[in-house]
Amino acid sequence: MVKVLVTGASGFIGNQVVNNLLSQKHQVIATSRDENKVRLKTWYNKVKYIPFDISNFDSNLNLYEYFNRPDVLIHLAWDGLPNFLDIVHIEKNLFTHYQFLKNYIQNGGKHITAIGTCLEYGKNEGCLSEDKVPEPDCAYAIAKDSLRRFIEELQKNQFFVFHWIRLFYMYGEGQYSKAILSQLETAVQKGDSVFNMSGGEQLRDYLSIEKVAQNIVAIALQKKIVGIINCSSGQPISVRRLVEDYISKNNYSIKLNFGFYPYPNYEPLAFWGNNQKLNNIINE
Amino acid sequence: MVKVLVTGASGFIGNQVVNNLLSQKHQVIATSRDENKVRLKTWYNKVKYIPFDISNFDSNLNLYEYFNRPDVLIHLAWDGLPNFLDIVHIEKNLFTHYQFLKNYIQNGGKHITAIGTCLEYGKNEGCLSEDKVPEPDCAYAIAKDSLRRFIEELQKNQFFVFHWIRLFYMYGEGQYSKAILSQLETAVQKGDSVFNMSGGEQLRDYLSIEKVAQNIVAIALQKKIVGIINCSSGQPISVRRLVEDYISKNNYSIKLNFGFYPYPNYEPLAFWGNNQKLNNIINE
Repeated sequence: MVKVLVTGASGFIGNQVVNNLLSQKHQVIATSRDENKVRLKTWYNKVKYIPFDISNFDSNLNLYEYFNRPDVLIHLAWDGLPNFLDIVHIEKNLFTHYQFLKNYIQNGGKHITAIGTCLEYGKNEGCLSEDKVPEPDCAYAIAKDSLRRFIEELQKNQFFVFHWIRLFYMYGEGQYSKAILSQLETAVQKGDSVFNMSGGEQLRDYLSIEKVAQNIVAIALQKKIVGIINCSSGQPISVRRLVEDYISKNNYSIKLNFGFYPYPNYEPLAFWGNNQKLNNIINE
Repeated sequence: MVKVLVTGASGFIGNQVVNNLLSQKHQVIATSRDENKVRLKTWYNKVKYIPFDISNFDSNLNLYEYFNRPDVLIHLAWDGLPNFLDIVHIEKNLFTHYQFLKNYIQNGGKHITAIGTCLEYGKNEGCLSEDKVPEPDCAYAIAKDSLRRFIEELQKNQFFVFHWIRLFYMYGEGQYSKAILSQLETAVQKGDSVFNMSGGEQLRDYLSIEKVAQNIVAIALQKKIVGIINCSSGQPISVRRLVEDYISKNNYSIKLNFGFYPYPNYEPLAFWGNNQKLNNIINE
């Protein structure tokens, strides 16, 4: 049994990560800003919950002690999503998260798993491997890639295990309302006959939130394979097919209006993640 | 006549940049932390000098007004050099310089030239062009590359001319005492018979400080060619030859003890800067 601290536990991913850890009988210390958001979670009484606001904490605090000396930290918390273009990621989040992780590490934390994004690859198309040099070009991805670089600098003077998981696309219950399948579901529930979307020909790399949580936990609980690790299926799917499959699976009859929205300008048209490193961990 | 604000004016580069601007009859506003360091400069009475501490300023200040609405900013100031590995570059300098530049830009500054480093190219060998994706791997280079990314994010919402000059190696009067030719000169003055150095086979790209200052001013005072610009000779020279040439030119008789020091671990063995962009500016 491993003692795992999960930040951002109330979130879309955090919720499933906690569930996954509990199903494997691990001891979970869960944290998030607002305890009221988690009281109704099925896991609330099965974890040690410690409310904490990363965006505003006393730098004299010893975070490693404060969270009861966890064996492993899975650091999911991050503010301001899904607005990827907001400069707040650079001006505020980057430094608060750097200070949070640095404090935790310098006080004794030896095993850290933190979350990056496929947007760190920037405008690169195709199958993206972890050794590709990052070219982030939106504020969120720049902040995340900078955070990774800064933490790697700390590794030069201090020993700790560090995983940096680049998440690709996800779907599943509880996702934020702007995600495409959330919007589709809302449109269906409202009784809309037509769903406006982009051209839909973008190739993306999607995993269900349950699978993402399972991968994050698998990565976090080992230390043989470290550094940057893509959390991806390795199997690109067009957004069009993703949506069509979802409609078909649910027997919906809503019509798709392709090309209504332009493609977002901060993403390439076709990219997916090489998942060999991930597979090596899972098949270990 | 252009009104140019020069930060870091008391430094090795700043001193020559101010001289160069004055020789071209431009109006110079010079700033640095400590006025006492510049009172004896030949240019002290020919500029408007405004002392200012970038590491500790009131964020309510309007920096563009404070410095009398310059046409062009040449931003040379940076603390903590030449200790390239110090995390202070990331933890402190990066954010103070970001806040300084952002304040200046948001209050009206429309033309900014800031200083980067060839170390942003990281361990890449050979002839390095500006379009090479940066792979900084020491704290100083990570901070500088991050600063450039952050300022480029601001360009998405605000118009301003932005030059990011990557400096390569330099030599000349007033250089910090650890630079190789400074150390050699000190050894000669002390009457040492032997000068201990590395293997000396590193290929580097050197310019005299006068030439560097001339290039910085030439880049800063135009807006046709913007973005990242190498300030380099394009002509690699071995450190051994650099030192031997210097000894020969000065008729010194000190002996060179090659291989006494290891090569630094944060630099590749052979790299130099493609200077086509710079040449296009100079030959305009």
